[in-house]
Amino acid sequence: MQNTILNHRSIRKFKADTIPGDMLERILLSGSRASTTGNMQVYSMVVTSKAEIKDKLWEAHFKQDMVKQAPVIITFCADFNRFNKWCTQRNASPGYDNFLSFFTAAIDSLLAAQNVAIAAEAEGLGICYLGTTTYMTQRIADILELPRFVVPVTTLVMGYPDETPPLTDRLPLGAVVHYEKYIDYSSVDIDKLYLEKENLETTRKLLEVNKKETLAQIFTDNRYAKKDNVAFSQSLLAFLEKQGFMNNM
Amino acid sequence: MQNTILNHRSIRKFKADTIPGDMLERILLSGSRASTTGNMQVYSMVVTSKAEIKDKLWEAHFKQDMVKQAPVIITFCADFNRFNKWCTQRNASPGYDNFLSFFTAAIDSLLAAQNVAIAAEAEGLGICYLGTTTYMTQRIADILELPRFVVPVTTLVMGYPDETPPLTDRLPLGAVVHYEKYIDYSSVDIDKLYLEKENLETTRKLLEVNKKETLAQIFTDNRYAKKDNVAFSQSLLAFLEKQGFMNNM
Repeated sequence: MQNTILNHRSIRKFKADTIPGDMLERILLSGSRASTTGNMQVYSMVVTSKAEIKDKLWEAHFKQDMVKQAPVIITFCADFNRFNKWCTQRNASPGYDNFLSFFTAAIDSLLAAQNVAIAAEAEGLGICYLGTTTYMTQRIADILELPRFVVPVTTLVMGYPDETPPLTDRLPLGAVVHYEKYIDYSSVDIDKLYLEKENLETTRKLLEVNKKETLAQIFTDNRYAKKDNVAFSQSLLAFLEKQGFMNNM
Repeated sequence: MQNTILNHRSIRKFKADTIPGDMLERILLSGSRASTTGNMQVYSMVVTSKAEIKDKLWEAHFKQDMVKQAPVIITFCADFNRFNKWCTQRNASPGYDNFLSFFTAAIDSLLAAQNVAIAAEAEGLGICYLGTTTYMTQRIADILELPRFVVPVTTLVMGYPDETPPLTDRLPLGAVVHYEKYIDYSSVDIDKLYLEKENLETTRKLLEVNKKETLAQIFTDNRYAKKDNVAFSQSLLAFLEKQGFMNNM
């Protein structure tokens, strides 16, 4: 079990083989067993495999090849639509049109997503998360016809791996773990914790290709630049408002 | 593996036994192998076991007994503090003081949390998520001394189970899965999907005890009332602002 977790690699190249229906069902069932706030299950999993719709998702997700190639794309959505409808039909007044409720539903979605990811890997499949989901919520909602109170939070591409990448480096465990309370980092700590990552051969190549002085600059200037983060913050907040989740008074 | 996932029960009563150090380390390592946006690892896990600090967390988490009883409490935090410090020390300008970056870090935290939950269960431990985390961010930050750019997102209590609860009911899988696109629910769909849940013996008892006409009313009036959701939305958004994550222009 923990082997599955410890051996996780993101897979970005897939074989053409489809995923057997009963296997996919087991994987989705694993998603539905994740913890969920008050057992409300305020999430949905939209499972897309038709080429026509995948092509549109591929475009929304910055044209990453794996979205076209993977036989299955699962979009995990924060979803209060179903719960709200149930409340209304049962003479109850839902008060879930606010930010807290969105965030609660996002937590539900993400715990389900990670169960699905692990269950898929345990079946011999490969997965990769698409961080582009939160950048492109409105476009994805248009493609998947998401109603009010439904917000895409993350996406998994899934299929039989057609590559065997090495394990990705991680910071030493001590970098992300604090005992008892949060112990803030001194500049010496930061130097120590990032030393191994900065000395990787892959880092050296990245600096050369990108003509940058430090690895951190590749993140701040190329991969996750302020300008983009600000634009995506605005569009994400606007989408939350549009979907009905920002009535906080 | 999938057995661990499919047999998940939230555990709220724990034995006094502590968790062996090497076991805890394996579990935390599993957390660190979860997918993370651009391998930035923008999360932290704060592992609390001292009674003095647990008592304060217990109070913050609405005095739920399990917080005092469990030998280990792990608070999962969205954390751009470490990454920002690294950037600044490396002549790079971090642009992560916005909502998108907070949400990215929250995703990282939640995927790590679910890995930790599953790894713990695979070791024979029991866990329960604390939904009260997002209600009480400021108070939890005070207790754990979280600096700017660190926001508690969820919490796991963990220990050896001292109860064997039955599997919790779930809606039929079809309620949370959509194929190709989102298929919205008709009122007949809603009736069908909630039928089993509404007919449970536990539901009947809940209605009797709470003197309510429908199960949905127990959610809207008692458990997750609009008044509380609005108040918690305001305090969560204010805390995001305070921690530096709402500079979206």
